[in-house]
Amino acid sequence: MLLKLQKHLNQNLPFLQDKKLLLAVSGGIDSMVLVHLFQKLNYDITIAHCNFGLRGDESDGDENFIKDYASKNNIKIFVTHFDTNKYALDFKLSIQLSARQLRYNWFYDLMKEKQLDYLLTAHHLDDSLETFLINLSRGTGIEGLTGIPQQNDKIIRPLLPFSRNEIEEYAKENNISWREDSSNASNKYLRNKLRHDVVPVLKSLNTSFMDSFQDTLIHLQQTQSLAEDASVLVYKQVVTEKENQKHININELKRLPNYKAYLYQWLNPFGFTAWYDIYELSDSQSGKQVLSDGYRLLKDREYLILEPIEEPVTNVYEIPEGITEISQPFPIRLISVNKTLKKIENNAIYVDAATLKFPLFARKWQEGDYFCPAGMKGQRKKVSKYFKDEKMSLSEKEKTWLLCSGDQVVWIINKRADERFKVTSQTTQILKIEVL
Amino acid sequence: MLLKLQKHLNQNLPFLQDKKLLLAVSGGIDSMVLVHLFQKLNYDITIAHCNFGLRGDESDGDENFIKDYASKNNIKIFVTHFDTNKYALDFKLSIQLSARQLRYNWFYDLMKEKQLDYLLTAHHLDDSLETFLINLSRGTGIEGLTGIPQQNDKIIRPLLPFSRNEIEEYAKENNISWREDSSNASNKYLRNKLRHDVVPVLKSLNTSFMDSFQDTLIHLQQTQSLAEDASVLVYKQVVTEKENQKHININELKRLPNYKAYLYQWLNPFGFTAWYDIYELSDSQSGKQVLSDGYRLLKDREYLILEPIEEPVTNVYEIPEGITEISQPFPIRLISVNKTLKKIENNAIYVDAATLKFPLFARKWQEGDYFCPAGMKGQRKKVSKYFKDEKMSLSEKEKTWLLCSGDQVVWIINKRADERFKVTSQTTQILKIEVL
Repeated sequence: MLLKLQKHLNQNLPFLQDKKLLLAVSGGIDSMVLVHLFQKLNYDITIAHCNFGLRGDESDGDENFIKDYASKNNIKIFVTHFDTNKYALDFKLSIQLSARQLRYNWFYDLMKEKQLDYLLTAHHLDDSLETFLINLSRGTGIEGLTGIPQQNDKIIRPLLPFSRNEIEEYAKENNISWREDSSNASNKYLRNKLRHDVVPVLKSLNTSFMDSFQDTLIHLQQTQSLAEDASVLVYKQVVTEKENQKHININELKRLPNYKAYLYQWLNPFGFTAWYDIYELSDSQSGKQVLSDGYRLLKDREYLILEPIEEPVTNVYEIPEGITEISQPFPIRLISVNKTLKKIENNAIYVDAATLKFPLFARKWQEGDYFCPAGMKGQRKKVSKYFKDEKMSLSEKEKTWLLCSGDQVVWIINKRADERFKVTSQTTQILKIEVL
Repeated sequence: MLLKLQKHLNQNLPFLQDKKLLLAVSGGIDSMVLVHLFQKLNYDITIAHCNFGLRGDESDGDENFIKDYASKNNIKIFVTHFDTNKYALDFKLSIQLSARQLRYNWFYDLMKEKQLDYLLTAHHLDDSLETFLINLSRGTGIEGLTGIPQQNDKIIRPLLPFSRNEIEEYAKENNISWREDSSNASNKYLRNKLRHDVVPVLKSLNTSFMDSFQDTLIHLQQTQSLAEDASVLVYKQVVTEKENQKHININELKRLPNYKAYLYQWLNPFGFTAWYDIYELSDSQSGKQVLSDGYRLLKDREYLILEPIEEPVTNVYEIPEGITEISQPFPIRLISVNKTLKKIENNAIYVDAATLKFPLFARKWQEGDYFCPAGMKGQRKKVSKYFKDEKMSLSEKEKTWLLCSGDQVVWIINKRADERFKVTSQTTQILKIEVL
């Protein structure tokens, strides 16, 4: 495995050489093998371990195990503790999402602070296969079948070409010890069901199944990149952009034998779902239209015109001090409460009333807006970046409202609160703001 | 299901209306539901049933069941009997492939003779899912994940959008009887394993799994068509064809961020497999080359030149009468034998010596060659069509030799014998021709 990894790194990740690498290590077999391999290959590595405090002594046992290992093997290490349960309650998130946010925020902070270049995680080929099957079970497009990406920004997954089996063999051959890894909690039921009931059958049908699967992933990735090229190339030929309108030339479009595939590719990001109506539209009379949540596709002589549906009235709604309920743009109630509720509510936030400057405003998001996401220690983040990270579609973005205090964002409504207005131990008046 | 099928036919297969349809009916639940639906929808249908004689009384029971059904419901019907075991032995084919050849040859003959327009089969969504999983288990590209095609020439599969479950419900609601269907013998072990061990798990994870899967198939088909467009569009920009050479402009090529995907797409049909070497070649010095079985990819200044590897000597080798062995183009032995051997040998044929005209010739295939495939009642078929049906790659085609008697093809060597030279009850001298 060492030689195969070395070859893989030289061919596909040559830029990692001489870089400072942070390795996310839970103490499970995958991450312990990751550490062992990268130490053997003489990379400049640092271990990062999160103790999420979710399994009491067991969590502490993991932490001590890794600290021990690092000290015996002379590897730099950073460890942090999270009160994951509290974070989940405070920010009304699931444990899984909380652990994820805490972990990646800390990794990024650490990389910045210690001037490390990349974060390495131990995802492997079986993880890709499980992801493939999870997405298949839910319904997907090619994007759900191309496996876990090798690189996302500064996160690199160098073990993706290796199967769980190879990792287990390497651990055995090199007498590597590990702790049972329970960090992989995401989709636990689904993942375990596929891991134990489906994957073994597939492997039993073809002894070199995992190799074949890797080739399958590469072929699908290539097909995806070609399809994206076609979409862009044909878009340039067929579509003219005019201010906020896109004019699709119907004659040019219908010369393509597979024009429906292009319409799907272009219109899907705008929230359209009525594909049969859309495919019919090019043969309909002028003036007919199909609507999505936020967009209109209009037949106008030789064109299909895509444009945003305008808001009928002004986009800013004022909430003066003392008002406890407004009805526009949708019903919002503001009430004083004694304490924050511990159960998760997506449609409400609790804020420190003293931090607000009235009147508040409800308005749509604008380019340039930023906020301080709850739980991120007051770090600023562009709202647009938040939308991107949440993989929101264009029409979802356009439907999103902000609650503002002056020019500060208090709440991306129904999505994320701002750190600056949160309830603390100093808070004397708690305001609950709720979408009804 | 009737209404959904009607809508599906109107939207996707409107041309079937007023056509004469031949329905392939085994007597199993799928094909009995197919007949019931198309009769209810008042299409002009004729039943075709093959009795393969593989299960004795059971096969005859199926036949009688369908004849009964057709007569009671006033549906035209044709039935034929095959000695499938004998055919398999005579032509050294598996039972599965024999049944397939016999079936489709007869269907096509029948359609021609009775002036029927299309053949309808009862393949459904679960068949597509099983095919998806079979191909996944073997390793595949997107072409293996897009399900069973709705139409292949004159063969139409109108039940593809319907799950086995929907078919079973329809059969129950309409009191349709059927015989247990054992015609679906292809990949029986694999298919059953997936049907019983994998598919139920996937369905248990998502109650609307089959609907999701159908959407997945449509998305993948669209992606595939876009990828093909990109391959063609970019080929036109980057490749110049000169006689039998293709010149790939390296500078143009490498402007594409995903140029490897294009190289793969273009070169894969020519039998190349050393992808890493090929990807390196564009940066190598002039004169370097990568070979496939039959083709050369040569770096020549700003170009990668693809060309066939020339045969070093003449392409026609004579086999005079009385000669029992030749060594060129490869060792072939001709011996008289008393009887044909019953076990399958790919590398030998038995012919009636009296039908041969010496000298025989071994030569490569040429455009325009035709033969009479063994088992097809003396019907002529272009060799190129045979290659296409067998899904042979360009380089496989170019490596294929023919054994000829005058200008008649005796044997597509190691692949398919010709009907005209076969051993019959009148044969007095049997010649075994064998590749050593």
